[in-house]
Amino acid sequence: MDTNPSLPPSRDKLLFTPGPLTTSLSVKQAMLHDAGSWHFEFNALVAGVRQRLLELAGLSREAGWEAVLLQGSGTYGVEAVFQTCVPPQGRVAVLANGAYGERMVQMLGLAKLGCVVLRTPPDTPADASALDQILARDPAVTHVAAVHCETTTGILNPIESLGAVARRHGKIFVVDAMSSFGAIPIDLAACGIDFLISSPNKCLEGVPGFCFVLCRRAALLACEGLARSLSLDLLGQFKGFEKNGQFRFTPPTHVLLACQQALSELEQEGGIAARAARYRRNHQTLMAGMRDLGFRPYLDPAVQSFIITAFEYPPDPRFSFDALYQGLSRRGFLIYPGKLTQADTFRIGTIGRLFPEDIAQLLDALRAALLEMGCTPSSLPPDSRAPHQPARAAVSQL
Amino acid sequence: MDTNPSLPPSRDKLLFTPGPLTTSLSVKQAMLHDAGSWHFEFNALVAGVRQRLLELAGLSREAGWEAVLLQGSGTYGVEAVFQTCVPPQGRVAVLANGAYGERMVQMLGLAKLGCVVLRTPPDTPADASALDQILARDPAVTHVAAVHCETTTGILNPIESLGAVARRHGKIFVVDAMSSFGAIPIDLAACGIDFLISSPNKCLEGVPGFCFVLCRRAALLACEGLARSLSLDLLGQFKGFEKNGQFRFTPPTHVLLACQQALSELEQEGGIAARAARYRRNHQTLMAGMRDLGFRPYLDPAVQSFIITAFEYPPDPRFSFDALYQGLSRRGFLIYPGKLTQADTFRIGTIGRLFPEDIAQLLDALRAALLEMGCTPSSLPPDSRAPHQPARAAVSQL
Repeated sequence: MDTNPSLPPSRDKLLFTPGPLTTSLSVKQAMLHDAGSWHFEFNALVAGVRQRLLELAGLSREAGWEAVLLQGSGTYGVEAVFQTCVPPQGRVAVLANGAYGERMVQMLGLAKLGCVVLRTPPDTPADASALDQILARDPAVTHVAAVHCETTTGILNPIESLGAVARRHGKIFVVDAMSSFGAIPIDLAACGIDFLISSPNKCLEGVPGFCFVLCRRAALLACEGLARSLSLDLLGQFKGFEKNGQFRFTPPTHVLLACQQALSELEQEGGIAARAARYRRNHQTLMAGMRDLGFRPYLDPAVQSFIITAFEYPPDPRFSFDALYQGLSRRGFLIYPGKLTQADTFRIGTIGRLFPEDIAQLLDALRAALLEMGCTPSSLPPDSRAPHQPARAAVSQL
Repeated sequence: MDTNPSLPPSRDKLLFTPGPLTTSLSVKQAMLHDAGSWHFEFNALVAGVRQRLLELAGLSREAGWEAVLLQGSGTYGVEAVFQTCVPPQGRVAVLANGAYGERMVQMLGLAKLGCVVLRTPPDTPADASALDQILARDPAVTHVAAVHCETTTGILNPIESLGAVARRHGKIFVVDAMSSFGAIPIDLAACGIDFLISSPNKCLEGVPGFCFVLCRRAALLACEGLARSLSLDLLGQFKGFEKNGQFRFTPPTHVLLACQQALSELEQEGGIAARAARYRRNHQTLMAGMRDLGFRPYLDPAVQSFIITAFEYPPDPRFSFDALYQGLSRRGFLIYPGKLTQADTFRIGTIGRLFPEDIAQLLDALRAALLEMGCTPSSLPPDSRAPHQPARAAVSQL
């Protein structure tokens, strides 16, 4: 391993994270241009990106759907939906089993919007029947909000059954699909989704700088007069695009150019199905290799996505996450710390412009880094795992 | 002129706009890397950018100042200051003489924050003595907000005298210095500024995707508990940087890499003084050339910045802005439409990685485009201009 600090590395460190991700050179090269944000060529690019995002989800404007782009991170998009769409007397039922569900609760609190939280433990998917009970006994609820892939653990929440419950009770359904859109097919109509928020720097393999909301036009237009923020006014943003094809405020032009290229590369790869297949191979390679190294995944495989995986710290006192992180970083690989308070975990993402060969290299580096800290990898038999305990949902009122 | 549409152009169109701007290739090439937003190397870059922004303004953390970066466009930064810092019973005196002052009024209205607007016509700078009277008779005002360079016209507002009035009355002073910071020296302490908002894609010659707020730490810390938005919580963002050096939510990593490079290139150029000198030469070249072509600037030269200039449509019935815009676009130059309701104007920016030679090329192209539409450029003697009428300030209560 060459550790001469005076020589710049020949390539960027590979990012095994929930995003920003490793992207193709061609996506980044698309940013080598300065576009005029008022110019008709750029307006056409924006219109094309909006159109292709709808097509990617199998939606169309003719069928009543819209794609609204918004400057800022994905969190801005989730908050924009709430700040724009929840009436003053509204109340949002949030399904939370990780940091991103809790973030929804936090943003509703700051905006002084009513909220009821239906919590499940981080290893337990959101519970549609518990939601059904909540909605039956709390008619003041107007919206239901869930995270599709909760990257705190990588757990997949059952948005189809949650959406069926929300729809049956006549509630607006909001889904944070930040880390799943583009790799896990989502049928918005079948799931009863009114607003879906995602970001170009996850499975679309673009770069960060804006987010987007796919929504039913009628649900968006129904929000007239509710916005509490100019920047986060999703309806205002939509009207701006309708008026002249432009962002209301300066867009991240270079990030848009990268997104256009990233969408083309997603098509070239074969669309969502092909990308999902690559990510699944990445994930399978990772799981097999980590098992061989003695690591145990935090989640039951039945609820684990192929997006990102949380692993428990091994019970070896010589193990140190900091040392592992540094050892991998020196070798050109970045992994992610855990985000759980209940368990010591770290996370490895398997999305972005990464291939099973990259995962294999990461596993080699992991083995080397473990040896450096004196840990001897040893297989942990799968049956040594404590049986998975499905936990009850807990409700908090705010 | 080669107009073969099957050949891609050899270079991007030059942007004579208020931003996004033409940037150097090296600034864009800095984006050819994927950085891990949690990684210590990226944290160091963020810390460096924050530090250099303070230094550029002659400020330091030791002296009680902070630089807070925020995802989104510059408007997000202005709104973040209001959403974070104005108490529920607060009231903001907004000095408005263009679209960006009016945008402040609009965002305060949506946030249901009290506001009194002191309007001057678009060709008349904000009036410090009128502000003095307002503050004397309306003690409920807590904040004063002004736009430094109002790019609607390019007018410069007297932030030093406005700040002196705000300070004398003990008000918090908020300045939108979006298009001036980095080219016009601003002494925040001397101007009594508590919060200054700007963006890396103006005179810093970076690319769009985030904004930044330079502020007195004590003024920011005094806002505890006031934020109405999670994404736009400036104090929360500051605390995030303090806690672990990171953005709370996914930052536009590539845009940050570009900003770091742009700051280095600003230093290499000789700092704010050298950049101001180049922009001033650009502006002088433009004004002389436009005068020769018969165009009249909208503003009196005494209040005109060298950032962007509004020109009146010539009184020739053959003149069409659309035709001019298209003629210039075909030749590789993008100018900007007007934003005034009171007069027909168009705008030409003189900031970004542009030199007097580029302005000279633009002028040649302008002459050619005018000839194409049958307009014969003819000098308009300066004394034919109606004498400048300083108008009275008008106050609106909200």
